[in-house]
Amino acid sequence: MEQGLTHFDSQGNAVMVDVSAKDVSVRMAQAKGQITVRRETLAAIQQGTARKGDVLAVARIAGIMAAKKTAELIPLCHPLVFDSCTIDFVLPEPKEPANPCPIEAVCTVRLSGKTGAEIEAMTGVSVALLTIYDMCKAMDRGMVIGAIRLWEKSGGKSGHFLRNEPLG
Amino acid sequence: MEQGLTHFDSQGNAVMVDVSAKDVSVRMAQAKGQITVRRETLAAIQQGTARKGDVLAVARIAGIMAAKKTAELIPLCHPLVFDSCTIDFVLPEPKEPANPCPIEAVCTVRLSGKTGAEIEAMTGVSVALLTIYDMCKAMDRGMVIGAIRLWEKSGGKSGHFLRNEPLG
Amino acid sequence: MEQGLTHFDSQGNAVMVDVSAKDVSVRMAQAKGQITVRRETLAAIQQGTARKGDVLAVARIAGIMAAKKTAELIPLCHPLVFDSCTIDFVLPEPKEPANPCPIEAVCTVRLSGKTGAEIEAMTGVSVALLTIYDMCKAMDRGMVIGAIRLWEKSGGKSGHFLRNEPLG
Amino acid sequence: MEQGLTHFDSQGNAVMVDVSAKDVSVRMAQAKGQITVRRETLAAIQQGTARKGDVLAVARIAGIMAAKKTAELIPLCHPLVFDSCTIDFVLPEPKEPANPCPIEAVCTVRLSGKTGAEIEAMTGVSVALLTIYDMCKAMDRGMVIGAIRLWEKSGGKSGHFLRNEPLG
Amino acid sequence: MEQGLTHFDSQGNAVMVDVSAKDVSVRMAQAKGQITVRRETLAAIQQGTARKGDVLAVARIAGIMAAKKTAELIPLCHPLVFDSCTIDFVLPEPKEPANPCPIEAVCTVRLSGKTGAEIEAMTGVSVALLTIYDMCKAMDRGMVIGAIRLWEKSGGKSGHFLRNEPLG
Amino acid sequence: MEQGLTHFDSQGNAVMVDVSAKDVSVRMAQAKGQITVRRETLAAIQQGTARKGDVLAVARIAGIMAAKKTAELIPLCHPLVFDSCTIDFVLPEPKEPANPCPIEAVCTVRLSGKTGAEIEAMTGVSVALLTIYDMCKAMDRGMVIGAIRLWEKSGGKSGHFLRNEPLG
Repeated sequence: MEQGLTHFDSQGNAVMVDVSAKDVSVRMAQAKGQITVRRETLAAIQQGTARKGDVLAVARIAGIMAAKKTAELIPLCHPLVFDSCTIDFVLPEPKEPANPCPIEAVCTVRLSGKTGAEIEAMTGVSVALLTIYDMCKAMDRGMVIGAIRLWEKSGGKSGHFLRNEPLG
Repeated sequence: MEQGLTHFDSQGNAVMVDVSAKDVSVRMAQAKGQITVRRETLAAIQQGTARKGDVLAVARIAGIMAAKKTAELIPLCHPLVFDSCTIDFVLPEPKEPANPCPIEAVCTVRLSGKTGAEIEAMTGVSVALLTIYDMCKAMDRGMVIGAIRLWEKSGGKSGHFLRNEPLG
Repeated sequence: MEQGLTHFDSQGNAVMVDVSAKDVSVRMAQAKGQITVRRETLAAIQQGTARKGDVLAVARIAGIMAAKKTAELIPLCHPLVFDSCTIDFVLPEPKEPANPCPIEAVCTVRLSGKTGAEIEAMTGVSVALLTIYDMCKAMDRGMVIGAIRLWEKSGGKSGHFLRNEPLG
Repeated sequence: MEQGLTHFDSQGNAVMVDVSAKDVSVRMAQAKGQITVRRETLAAIQQGTARKGDVLAVARIAGIMAAKKTAELIPLCHPLVFDSCTIDFVLPEPKEPANPCPIEAVCTVRLSGKTGAEIEAMTGVSVALLTIYDMCKAMDRGMVIGAIRLWEKSGGKSGHFLRNEPLG
Repeated sequence: MEQGLTHFDSQGNAVMVDVSAKDVSVRMAQAKGQITVRRETLAAIQQGTARKGDVLAVARIAGIMAAKKTAELIPLCHPLVFDSCTIDFVLPEPKEPANPCPIEAVCTVRLSGKTGAEIEAMTGVSVALLTIYDMCKAMDRGMVIGAIRLWEKSGGKSGHFLRNEPLG
Repeated sequence: MEQGLTHFDSQGNAVMVDVSAKDVSVRMAQAKGQITVRRETLAAIQQGTARKGDVLAVARIAGIMAAKKTAELIPLCHPLVFDSCTIDFVLPEPKEPANPCPIEAVCTVRLSGKTGAEIEAMTGVSVALLTIYDMCKAMDRGMVIGAIRLWEKSGGKSGHFLRNEPLG
């Protein structure tokens, strides 16, 4: 892994890293995160799932659209053309005793290019979770978004990375 | 506090909540969040602070610009006109033993309008932290963004809210 | 109703119409449109409605988000702040013999301002229908989007308008 | 032609279709549509054509700019890089008796990529027509936008398609 | 006139200036700028004026659309809602001997709000001139954009300002 | 160098130039420009350089982000994917007697594609200078942005170009 901060030139000026010399390669990145909600909120979300309006469906769309906009949000990020982007949610088990409890979001991005898709996947997760917050805030203002992290990546010079986290 | 999900009509279709009948009032919202970084990363960020290029300066700008774009990112969010937006960072104390350690971001938004600025403040924090991630990821891929939460709000029908968290 | 084209000055140069002298008033606009699809496509959309992924849910979100972006798409349109925006769909009756058959989209926008919301409502309908096209095009390339028209408006100097169309 | 809806995975969750395995090929798509206007409106548009300000010139620019933004408007659409985009208008013949009468818009997009440009061409036509509506609405509120359809496409796995419509 | 830089707080952190305490007032700002072109380029632009395609018409639209996007481009600028925006061009006199010669752009913005429209007018001029550059660069790569300056403003605490420039 | 305006077809309609037949090649473009400020303003900017908040740092970020948005601002410009983008500033020498005095901005863009990056570099310079204007306007309303010009380009059919300007 490289040392030091890459987005600055020798005078310390912020730059978009020059990737001219990099090879185009197939790349994948997956990020995860979660939002912690009260059980009443989870119930409201789950009831909505059975109906036309659906918090998770709206959040999924917002996350995918935000992943596409990453270069517009993150100043020194390179514009990219994606091959695919998906967002999945994992709801707590019914027997899960914790209150509040976590809803997990997972964003997976695939592309063929000179840079990785890590920040795109992180952005997709973040905006999906912000959308859940927006749609539920009137009944659960204290929700907390967290654990947004890179889970896995492949392709590019630094090759394969899978986060080393104990299960559970 | 209201019960139920507000962004759906009686058929369960997602809607932008109708705020026609609400009064214009002065509103403030403050959100906080953090990114957990290795000590080497914190040192690199702090060294950059003394020079022209500055991770936190770039992250601050990205967060303020993203707060302005919130209605473009969050599907059912109302477009708003702001009076002000600030982003501050709190770095760990030098004697802080933890490794990794947290850098905190705080976003405060003020406006005069029919809806609150909670999601704008949450978005500003989220994108500021995503920008720190982007600028440091080559040396610290495992950084985790978390604890993104509403800290305080005032104005509007639900009045004043200050999060009840133990100090520390 | 005024005569002539309003978006040009006396030299024929395109301008954003000066609304400084207009009063702020409560305004509503509703637009309708439809997309004509083969019966197999309608069936696929209706089956999806019962599942988590839902063509109409995605189209609804896209339409609402596009209505918010109208001033960014339509060159001489004024930026506006909305009070509300909804999109509804009307599916053909089960006994409807026509093949292809029409799915109708209706967008309603409310705001308080110096200009009406007609073009915002038209844009919301258009992008909702384009999204249905995008999501079904692999199985029904020949779908036609049409009948996009202003249905009703109120507020502002020209007052109330309701389209005069025979039922059916 | 493929069966079923492509933008959903096996659980019915909306996804951006994975095009990693597709070949890059040269692609073209052309879409058409029309707006039906009163004869007085057509005359005003044609008079403007001879002067600096020009409804069709503004509409053309809006349509081209919107085609470029398609991935930002249509949730599950892939970002693309274009080779070209043109928008043409066809006005009714002088002897055309119908009132109202149709102005036709045609958008042609060419690119080299893994996905087609059909939705980009449809979007270009739609926003060009919405712009004509916006610029003429003060004198012809009842204009109807319609017949927005894919006219021709080439390239990609499904090869060449030309709409089969009787002339006239 | 105020002293010092207003976009920084006491710690030197960049902030969006807090305008909560300011009064809403009617505001106008006009900015001017120019692009210096070879006489052959001016002739090509003027010939186009007589035809459907028109460099200045495209540049005018681009400038108006960019003025609307100012808050998206200029980091610490407040989002605003306009009442009007116009862009005019002044071509050199036929007898003007200079080669290259200047085409002037003038952008005038009116709004009612808590902040002025100076940067919106400057942005409209800048993008209009950049568009002329883009459309003519294949035949006149050496064009220079300059003299972009605030010409006049009114409203707000600092009242009326008219640039003091000798005629000619 | 080619003759005539390239962005119009034979009927004079504005078009996005068809680059299908062009080769992908490595391209670079560098543009320069300046803003003329009073000496007090330069001093305020230089004092800020030593602190966390920094006019030039904000302007640099705004310029890079705007260069990425060029296809969204300039109507007939092709969307591009960059390899790199940098913005540098040159401050007047301490002994420079002129008042007002010029701050220079330089934007360099590299990409691999079918079209050059000239307008992207020009746009980066323009928005960086507009940002300096925005951040200093309260104390120096009369600042002038100028001398925005292409300095150098390479790659593509027209090959290498370096502006021929006398030193000083």
